[in-house]
Amino acid sequence: MEFTKMHGIGNDYLYFNCMEKEIQNPEELSIKLSDRHFGVGGDGIILILPSKLADFRMRMFNADGSEGKMCGNGVRCIAKYVYEKGLTNKDVITLETLGGIKTLKLFVEDNKVMQVEVNMGKAILNPKDIPVLLDKDIIVNEKITVDNREVGITCVSMGNPHCVIYMDNIDDLEIEKIGPKFENHPLFPERINTEFIQVIDEKTIKMRVWERGSGETYACGTGACAAVVASVLNKYCKINEDITVKLLGGDLKIKYLSDGLVYMTGPAEFVFEGRI
Amino acid sequence: MEFTKMHGIGNDYLYFNCMEKEIQNPEELSIKLSDRHFGVGGDGIILILPSKLADFRMRMFNADGSEGKMCGNGVRCIAKYVYEKGLTNKDVITLETLGGIKTLKLFVEDNKVMQVEVNMGKAILNPKDIPVLLDKDIIVNEKITVDNREVGITCVSMGNPHCVIYMDNIDDLEIEKIGPKFENHPLFPERINTEFIQVIDEKTIKMRVWERGSGETYACGTGACAAVVASVLNKYCKINEDITVKLLGGDLKIKYLSDGLVYMTGPAEFVFEGRI
Repeated sequence: MEFTKMHGIGNDYLYFNCMEKEIQNPEELSIKLSDRHFGVGGDGIILILPSKLADFRMRMFNADGSEGKMCGNGVRCIAKYVYEKGLTNKDVITLETLGGIKTLKLFVEDNKVMQVEVNMGKAILNPKDIPVLLDKDIIVNEKITVDNREVGITCVSMGNPHCVIYMDNIDDLEIEKIGPKFENHPLFPERINTEFIQVIDEKTIKMRVWERGSGETYACGTGACAAVVASVLNKYCKINEDITVKLLGGDLKIKYLSDGLVYMTGPAEFVFEGRI
Repeated sequence: MEFTKMHGIGNDYLYFNCMEKEIQNPEELSIKLSDRHFGVGGDGIILILPSKLADFRMRMFNADGSEGKMCGNGVRCIAKYVYEKGLTNKDVITLETLGGIKTLKLFVEDNKVMQVEVNMGKAILNPKDIPVLLDKDIIVNEKITVDNREVGITCVSMGNPHCVIYMDNIDDLEIEKIGPKFENHPLFPERINTEFIQVIDEKTIKMRVWERGSGETYACGTGACAAVVASVLNKYCKINEDITVKLLGGDLKIKYLSDGLVYMTGPAEFVFEGRI
């Protein structure tokens, strides 16, 4: 079986071309291959399939075998894969995912896909839909107590729930200690992903993320979107402008539009071709 | 460039056939490829080369680019590689390493290498040569104070320094807390690898290991050897007998002979073939 390892700012998956052949038991395969010592190693596997509704369809499986809906870093890699391997010559591609049909815009130079823009959908601000157990219309810099300290939280869902916090310096943050206190706080019935943000200037923010169930990760695409939406709501950044989010794994550009839509632009990289 | 990912009870390297072609800058290559998110992922790279002194020669590079002398789990993989890929049809192979020439005995069934025995050399017990700053001839269950508690240590070098500790239960051990206290204890001028051992019976011990510079690992071949030597010195196990060491990554069989030599037997596995 052939596969391709790719990453989007450090979020790494094994990609399988399933346009003409089927993979049995992708759940089991993902568990086996994702192991970083006994298997190939990765955050999971992604299958690229034919679609009746779009140019392509994706299915993604996490390292624990569970199926994911969508992954911003993963869909950028799919765009690069299908273009550079000659499965399409379009520079705007539609992709069917469990999170809906996504439109991907490719920025191509010398036949290489340098950057991909993904429409990440609308930011959800209503606490009931995030969900957060606070009786408000919107949660912007709302003071709550976490680990005996008062912090201001801003909450946004991008299909998954995010809680955004601002700090003067995130380099020395003991994220392993504080991350779980947010993740398991009683205000968040489905737990939460937490973004710790240091504002650099009105066009640049720096971010570390604690993902529910995973701990600190190099990159979280929806988290970067939520962080920019929160930064606009808190007036650190402007609406309708490209904001650079500096994550541990690299940079993303995020734009929050007046109509509520969020666009993410970032790179995708081939790492190696494999055979098992 | 083609490579093969293999592991020996979870100790995983990328193997390159350099019998006919050279690799430039293996240090740099190892740093780049070993990264588990941005690269291929592994504990390092191992080159298989021609030798004037033995059947083959190996060079191994750690994930940080430094060159290693020898790796018990790695040389078992080399034995499987050269036999199953048809580079040799011998079932006793000599291998030139920076730690001397090693003799490998292959246990073959249906043309597959199931287990490999490695002569790991003589156990060194003299504190000066380990090194440990204690004025003794040998260090067996010597009481020292670590983190304000008295513990009995047994020290052995297998080319690298080891400190062996016995406990009733190692499953709940907070190794991230206690490991560094041993590693950086003033008695060990070159720092130390620490094995935490639970004796199951006189033929079986269970082990967790804290490696200097690496933290907890799945498997440490020289550590398993040191643990069996220490267990013989402490009379938990017998000399000249196969002792099973149960590590997080799998089992090894270790034999400590009356002449001071230590033999290790264990498996090796192919994971995948890659191309970069």
